[in-house]
Amino acid sequence: MANRVAFIGLGMMGYPMAGHLAKRFETIVWNRTATKAQEHARQYGSQAVQNLQETAQAEFIFTCLPTSVEVEEVVRQVLPALKAGTVWIDCTSGDPNHSRRIAQSLREVGCDFLDAPVSGGRAGAEAGTLTVMVGGSEETFRRALPIIEAFAGKVFHVGDVGAGHAVKAINNMLLAVHLLATAEGLVALAKQGVDPAIALEVINVSSGRSFASEVHFPERVLTRAFPNTFSLALLAKDTRIAVSIAREVYVPTPLMQLAAEMFEMAKRQIGGDVDHTAVVKLIEGWAGTEIAPRTKEG
Amino acid sequence: MANRVAFIGLGMMGYPMAGHLAKRFETIVWNRTATKAQEHARQYGSQAVQNLQETAQAEFIFTCLPTSVEVEEVVRQVLPALKAGTVWIDCTSGDPNHSRRIAQSLREVGCDFLDAPVSGGRAGAEAGTLTVMVGGSEETFRRALPIIEAFAGKVFHVGDVGAGHAVKAINNMLLAVHLLATAEGLVALAKQGVDPAIALEVINVSSGRSFASEVHFPERVLTRAFPNTFSLALLAKDTRIAVSIAREVYVPTPLMQLAAEMFEMAKRQIGGDVDHTAVVKLIEGWAGTEIAPRTKEG
Amino acid sequence: MANRVAFIGLGMMGYPMAGHLAKRFETIVWNRTATKAQEHARQYGSQAVQNLQETAQAEFIFTCLPTSVEVEEVVRQVLPALKAGTVWIDCTSGDPNHSRRIAQSLREVGCDFLDAPVSGGRAGAEAGTLTVMVGGSEETFRRALPIIEAFAGKVFHVGDVGAGHAVKAINNMLLAVHLLATAEGLVALAKQGVDPAIALEVINVSSGRSFASEVHFPERVLTRAFPNTFSLALLAKDTRIAVSIAREVYVPTPLMQLAAEMFEMAKRQIGGDVDHTAVVKLIEGWAGTEIAPRTKEG
Amino acid sequence: MANRVAFIGLGMMGYPMAGHLAKRFETIVWNRTATKAQEHARQYGSQAVQNLQETAQAEFIFTCLPTSVEVEEVVRQVLPALKAGTVWIDCTSGDPNHSRRIAQSLREVGCDFLDAPVSGGRAGAEAGTLTVMVGGSEETFRRALPIIEAFAGKVFHVGDVGAGHAVKAINNMLLAVHLLATAEGLVALAKQGVDPAIALEVINVSSGRSFASEVHFPERVLTRAFPNTFSLALLAKDTRIAVSIAREVYVPTPLMQLAAEMFEMAKRQIGGDVDHTAVVKLIEGWAGTEIAPRTKEG
Repeated sequence: MANRVAFIGLGMMGYPMAGHLAKRFETIVWNRTATKAQEHARQYGSQAVQNLQETAQAEFIFTCLPTSVEVEEVVRQVLPALKAGTVWIDCTSGDPNHSRRIAQSLREVGCDFLDAPVSGGRAGAEAGTLTVMVGGSEETFRRALPIIEAFAGKVFHVGDVGAGHAVKAINNMLLAVHLLATAEGLVALAKQGVDPAIALEVINVSSGRSFASEVHFPERVLTRAFPNTFSLALLAKDTRIAVSIAREVYVPTPLMQLAAEMFEMAKRQIGGDVDHTAVVKLIEGWAGTEIAPRTKEG
Repeated sequence: MANRVAFIGLGMMGYPMAGHLAKRFETIVWNRTATKAQEHARQYGSQAVQNLQETAQAEFIFTCLPTSVEVEEVVRQVLPALKAGTVWIDCTSGDPNHSRRIAQSLREVGCDFLDAPVSGGRAGAEAGTLTVMVGGSEETFRRALPIIEAFAGKVFHVGDVGAGHAVKAINNMLLAVHLLATAEGLVALAKQGVDPAIALEVINVSSGRSFASEVHFPERVLTRAFPNTFSLALLAKDTRIAVSIAREVYVPTPLMQLAAEMFEMAKRQIGGDVDHTAVVKLIEGWAGTEIAPRTKEG
Repeated sequence: MANRVAFIGLGMMGYPMAGHLAKRFETIVWNRTATKAQEHARQYGSQAVQNLQETAQAEFIFTCLPTSVEVEEVVRQVLPALKAGTVWIDCTSGDPNHSRRIAQSLREVGCDFLDAPVSGGRAGAEAGTLTVMVGGSEETFRRALPIIEAFAGKVFHVGDVGAGHAVKAINNMLLAVHLLATAEGLVALAKQGVDPAIALEVINVSSGRSFASEVHFPERVLTRAFPNTFSLALLAKDTRIAVSIAREVYVPTPLMQLAAEMFEMAKRQIGGDVDHTAVVKLIEGWAGTEIAPRTKEG
Repeated sequence: MANRVAFIGLGMMGYPMAGHLAKRFETIVWNRTATKAQEHARQYGSQAVQNLQETAQAEFIFTCLPTSVEVEEVVRQVLPALKAGTVWIDCTSGDPNHSRRIAQSLREVGCDFLDAPVSGGRAGAEAGTLTVMVGGSEETFRRALPIIEAFAGKVFHVGDVGAGHAVKAINNMLLAVHLLATAEGLVALAKQGVDPAIALEVINVSSGRSFASEVHFPERVLTRAFPNTFSLALLAKDTRIAVSIAREVYVPTPLMQLAAEMFEMAKRQIGGDVDHTAVVKLIEGWAGTEIAPRTKEG
């Protein structure tokens, strides 16, 4: 076990990801709330540090934070302590432009950067089967791949620095569009007297189905449970990144743009601190009906 | 075999559907181009008739035509010959309002109506595993179910007359939205230097996936094959039905409405006689790039 | 004074319009609330009738009602009493398709129809300077013109039956778009620290100005008065007519469609019984700010 | 005449603006194509310089360039030569974020910045009656006001640095929305058989009117002249600035966003080098009809 790794940000995703790393590598962990890091150390045998700069002892430093803003701040603090040759791997669902700036500042001190956001949710993080989409140079990717594989099912090298974040943002934008469009369709049917639960069952064996309709609507919407595993505000942030990616290259993407606007409306009307699937309440509110199974009495 | 059935409209879907019926029931077939009906008779042992009114001998009459406009015309012609108690089952991807009018005119001569559009494509029709979404009374549904099952995998009773067409229209609208949004996302990534084939692979193991991304993009778009199994004009028609369903009940559905507008744009710019997946060319045209795998040289 | 006219619907617009007619012609008036008709008779010397069919004594019958639905109902009731040669002039902001149906039913009893919606508001109605946009045959238009001129500033013959309503619907749709877009712009500026009152002043001497920005925003929005002269629900109805006009001829009109959706959202969130300019509150709600002058302290 | 001014950028607007300044103040002019500056010197008695840094002799330096990108470059070049106390006045239709950066870099050498975009077109520039919307400190505004008044009709102080550009961008966005929405309405009416010229006449005495409908449609669209006084690409740029202003403060502005997308589509389909009013051709293309007066034969 030649490598030492560090993991910054032990949130819902980062905590189990760092756990998988700790099973294979000597792993330093840091978290804003230090007790979380200590708990991780006890559970996985990682090494909890209180001083952020101590993570600079590792050859591979991971970040998994809410947005690129926090990543930039953390890099700024750790940078003076970095050894040349360190690879910084950012698993945040971040912004390609921030990533390019971060990569540039790391390059100036002889370090490399990969943006490596993940997909698969808490369950995938715990199982160590996350999909990872990586942006960066071919060479850095090859060096980091054996480390990333500790928590990954599939790892894709999708392009240069920023490309990982771009693909992730577009993926999440599609999720956002599918949530909204499926909600629109189901409330229209509900108002026409069709049971949304039955309509959904039909759609899920037909051509209109999506991950959103197959997983999120049955589990989170029809049940009215909306368990908060990924906040509406964070998905709104991803849609903003997606539209800025499109605007940057002057590509008209009217559906994506409109979906981003609708997430802003939802943040205001529903609030950002609920599960992202609660965005359907925006459309339910417009329609004056709920996406819920009809009871025989109802 | 107590029942006699008739099938009007031996197109890409209707031909094999009527074939499955003919294996179980005495089946009369009629088609605008009579040679097609004769071919069907030879292949499946059905009885080809030239006079549309001869279909009125059956207890169950099926229609599978391009739009509700053709169905209304056919009903108008057959109506004078109908026996009371006949059940008319319309498998067209039709319009709920037309269906309600047709049902009313049939009711006046003692006949019943079901709207029973199908999902599953040519392959499902040939395998006899179509998903069928049925609108109409519980009693009529029960009478017709054993007949419909001849070509069905799953049969859903989704509500009163028109509900089958409504669910089908919303399903197809979702397909339309997914095609457009996925195209928007992939062209934006392509312009950012990401290979659309790789981006699609990532999306298809992530939360942004849909039937469109899993089936249509790999098979029809990336290959640039666009095999014409279901025309752009017909999907545009379905999106129009979907938005009229939403407008009728005063439900704001901005994404659906915008997608319907985009299909109208595509009809004008790409043409309606191509496969529905060719709608991506509208967005490719705006971006000046194609959704195709990048070659190493490219 | 050879002609006798009748006026059905003495609302905010109809009351003064019928008053101008009464100054020139023998005028029969009918109103759902009969006391309003009696008041009109006292004020203008018109003849109030209680039985709707008594209006059939006139050669020219005017309607000015909330929607075409009410007009169709009134025509249905009066029709049996009509003399051949009567001209029915509908000043409602109506639906072209309804108008065509009404015209057809009148034609069958030898009567003619003009759709003749007006623009200019209560003030124009009182001054007798309304703009009138007329749909119908050239010959009927010529016969009715001297009568219509009693309350008109400008009278335009814009096409066949339905064309008047179509032009009116598009005009009102433009008002709807301008209200929404100007509100969007002003809240964005307000959030950027610019006083909306000053921004509006600049826009009103620049290329972004409109009737909405020059009249409605200073008088109704900045003052927060929103006097209810024309309801949000009625303008929402006009936007629905406008989009159905465009859909009917397969013309993509994405901005119009989106504006229509936004008016539906506003009806749900703000309510339909407020002045149409209160639609800005939808956008203010999304932004969390008001379009009002900033005080030095504020 | 105590002041010396400089003017950088003698384009369609800048040339006459600098002319008005030269009538009142000692005026240095610079233009990328030097012959234009020499022509200006002959016509107005200004002093043409070849070296950009010579403009630093003036106390007030004006820029009027295509975009903020060119302004930043020019400032970068002149900066080393600037005297403390100089006021830089940028009349470009620029980007507030660029302006704030420029202001910061000028502040560091003791200079002040105003963003002061103008409205009124070539005609207003020649008459010296432009509307000017100024962002910057109250004190700098007061110092510069007597200078700016040389070419202005009305001068508004709209807020801090960037506010002038923000107001201008929103104004131009409204123009963009009005052009598109009016085109949508007129093509829909044209397809319904209404003469667009007559419809426009009605709208222009009704509540749907705007600067676009009153000036641009009669003069540029109905005539099919589309004289190129302000390019489609530049208005597209302004719509991009407007939407980024709204996004920055998290304000949902769906109509503005959609209009910005439509201008990107138009750039691709119509080209950016035509007059901004030619954007109507995007919608005409979708409809398959032109906004032109109908001839009796047509």
